[in-house]
Amino acid sequence: MNAIKVGLLGIGTVGGGTFEVLRRNQEEIKGRAGRGIEIAMVADLNSERAKSIVGDGVPVVSDARQVIANPEIDIVVELIGGYGIAKTLVLEAIAAGKHVVTANKALLAVHGTEIFAAAREKGVVVAFEAAVAGGIPIIKALREGLAANRIEWAAGIINGTTNFILSEMRSKGLDFGTVLKEAQRLGYAEADPTFDIEGVDAAHKATLMSALAFGIPVQFDKAHVEGITQLQATDIKYAEQLGYRIKLLGITRRREKGIELRVHPTLIPTTRLIANVEGAMNAVVVQGDAVGTTLYYGKGAGAEPTASAVIADLVDITRLATADPDHRVPHLAFQPDAISSTPILPMAEVHTSFYLRLRVADRAGVLSKVTTLLAENDISIDAMLQREAAEGESQTDLVILTHETTEGRMNTALVQMQALDTVLAPIVRIRKEELA
Amino acid sequence: MNAIKVGLLGIGTVGGGTFEVLRRNQEEIKGRAGRGIEIAMVADLNSERAKSIVGDGVPVVSDARQVIANPEIDIVVELIGGYGIAKTLVLEAIAAGKHVVTANKALLAVHGTEIFAAAREKGVVVAFEAAVAGGIPIIKALREGLAANRIEWAAGIINGTTNFILSEMRSKGLDFGTVLKEAQRLGYAEADPTFDIEGVDAAHKATLMSALAFGIPVQFDKAHVEGITQLQATDIKYAEQLGYRIKLLGITRRREKGIELRVHPTLIPTTRLIANVEGAMNAVVVQGDAVGTTLYYGKGAGAEPTASAVIADLVDITRLATADPDHRVPHLAFQPDAISSTPILPMAEVHTSFYLRLRVADRAGVLSKVTTLLAENDISIDAMLQREAAEGESQTDLVILTHETTEGRMNTALVQMQALDTVLAPIVRIRKEELA
Repeated sequence: MNAIKVGLLGIGTVGGGTFEVLRRNQEEIKGRAGRGIEIAMVADLNSERAKSIVGDGVPVVSDARQVIANPEIDIVVELIGGYGIAKTLVLEAIAAGKHVVTANKALLAVHGTEIFAAAREKGVVVAFEAAVAGGIPIIKALREGLAANRIEWAAGIINGTTNFILSEMRSKGLDFGTVLKEAQRLGYAEADPTFDIEGVDAAHKATLMSALAFGIPVQFDKAHVEGITQLQATDIKYAEQLGYRIKLLGITRRREKGIELRVHPTLIPTTRLIANVEGAMNAVVVQGDAVGTTLYYGKGAGAEPTASAVIADLVDITRLATADPDHRVPHLAFQPDAISSTPILPMAEVHTSFYLRLRVADRAGVLSKVTTLLAENDISIDAMLQREAAEGESQTDLVILTHETTEGRMNTALVQMQALDTVLAPIVRIRKEELA
Repeated sequence: MNAIKVGLLGIGTVGGGTFEVLRRNQEEIKGRAGRGIEIAMVADLNSERAKSIVGDGVPVVSDARQVIANPEIDIVVELIGGYGIAKTLVLEAIAAGKHVVTANKALLAVHGTEIFAAAREKGVVVAFEAAVAGGIPIIKALREGLAANRIEWAAGIINGTTNFILSEMRSKGLDFGTVLKEAQRLGYAEADPTFDIEGVDAAHKATLMSALAFGIPVQFDKAHVEGITQLQATDIKYAEQLGYRIKLLGITRRREKGIELRVHPTLIPTTRLIANVEGAMNAVVVQGDAVGTTLYYGKGAGAEPTASAVIADLVDITRLATADPDHRVPHLAFQPDAISSTPILPMAEVHTSFYLRLRVADRAGVLSKVTTLLAENDISIDAMLQREAAEGESQTDLVILTHETTEGRMNTALVQMQALDTVLAPIVRIRKEELA
């Protein structure tokens, strides 16, 4: 059987990795897929660099539309990124009857509903294993491997840059700014790291996970997005003393009234496997009602790990070529007629426990006022840590771990505690999850 | 569309779990599969108990052949276990044109070649996600999620009973016999625990992983199988002091001249995620050339975790019903014409590093003799630990970690060291893997 023909839109890091892995492992891949997978055309604005990567055998063009218009091409791989031209090209490829493979989480988290509908209409597949957690086959796990389960929640370290920064802050006791610069020097953070450090990239991925886990449409605009730029070394240290690590988690959880969808720094018990995922690695924990807790770990970025996911999608599509489109794995795990209208909950209704750090006057009665306010808001205390004021100091840190409550209740309590004249600085509040 | 009809052979723990999860999550599962999945007939020798589980709606028979002969049944789920009648029934179901789902690792590790060939001949699927690591979708990861990769090795904690025992031995400092009794009392070990504690169950699973990872036929008879019955609390303690945990691993690794396939207690650096998998949990690490290291963690046994895998297979088969059989995922990951004849290496050619514990006379020159013998066999030393002999004692423990060598060389060195008159007891030898 002839090789299936692939057109590549964009041959940067991931495109180059995809080309290289397809070339290097062509025998293995053909042995699995039952058919060769061949990159037949490449489009890149920098066609000189593109030619230097793919050599003479593969036509390189600067106009992506030439790839889409090529009747030989069965599958278009979009590796341009972003919401702009990438969206236009993906929709054009679908309209031309091509299957699409993309690593573009931003595009799918924001425009997924439109894109998947167009693909269904045309009877083609839009595959995106590379869009969440790079080389880890987490989308396959959520869509297929755990298909028996009512998923309860999924929570992941799904941004390598921020996990690298948090790992360095903890192990070296450094502050955020210093480590960010180091991460940029080492290539773990981009020159403009905003999307990573502000939690946007993780929120794109969490949005896709929420859709796959709960059969709801992608709703990035409803996600709560909070990054790590405000995180202080002090809190990482206190958390450690209390038996917790702080990780930037993307979390989506089913509650009675709706779905939680949020990205924020989170205290996790050090005894959990995911708390020990360090450096730029990714990991996702999924809780299903039948299977219990499962965890998936690996590299979330990089040329070849991401290529591994792109090519897995290519192999799947190669196999699916002869299947009745209605019997393929649905884009968002559930069949279109089974998509649920369960709402994403507003942040005020989200349930978590909290870590609080109050800078307080070292004076009798402070603790009693704080605990009274918490009690009045029906927030109970799990643990407390009060640093003894150093000789001659008039201030000290009061650290509190609460039991689970709602964000709304905590917001009210925070305003009241902040108003106390013995609370001397903005209260630090970090959410905490047991993940059990 | 009508529900797909499933016949269950055996409704014990896993069968009962499968029935319950299919019932409880029927809406979710149908939403994913696009079609209901219905247990239409159950065969169990204990038909009274079976009836008490499935109620009135489902016909229960004591003769499995009535299920196989039922023209309404599309998929037969074999949950009887063992090599005997289960093999006959699986082959008969295939001959009757039924797809088969099984959790029977023993059957497939030993008779897989015959069974998969029969299935191919008939154009039906034999699915076995539940056969390795219970609810963890590791077979899907190896066959599909990592399809881009040349797999380098896979290593897993794939027997919960032994991992529970090892975890208890370490955390409580108890010996094997004591913990085994406790495990039996708690239901973590069976009345006859031989298959678990002697490593046979793990070897069945490792055999399946070797076939899936490297495209070789299942060859259980070539696996090296070593259990945990000889393991002493002393060695767990020394390993801990050196920064290692001891786990029973199933390991399969590609080498230049062939494939390693082995189950044995193994020292793993405590810093590895898999070293921290405790209790009855399972985890598998897979190293691919593109993706790097990935890890999959979850419950490896139990009614509902195993049912989760059985049902994932049912969903896959439901979808595949309309696919050209040649385009389905191949049973052993690779197409029949791509199956490799790479041999399984004899144990003497396997490469590992080693932990050695020698009971030696507390006398000058002992260390020099031992290290000389190792050097003469070209085995280099990575670390050493010598306990000071207690006051009045004439013996002490000498613990050595070696760099990587072959099993054959180590065997020679062991015979020579054992012959020294200053070595006073059988030398303890445990293999060590860095898993990086």
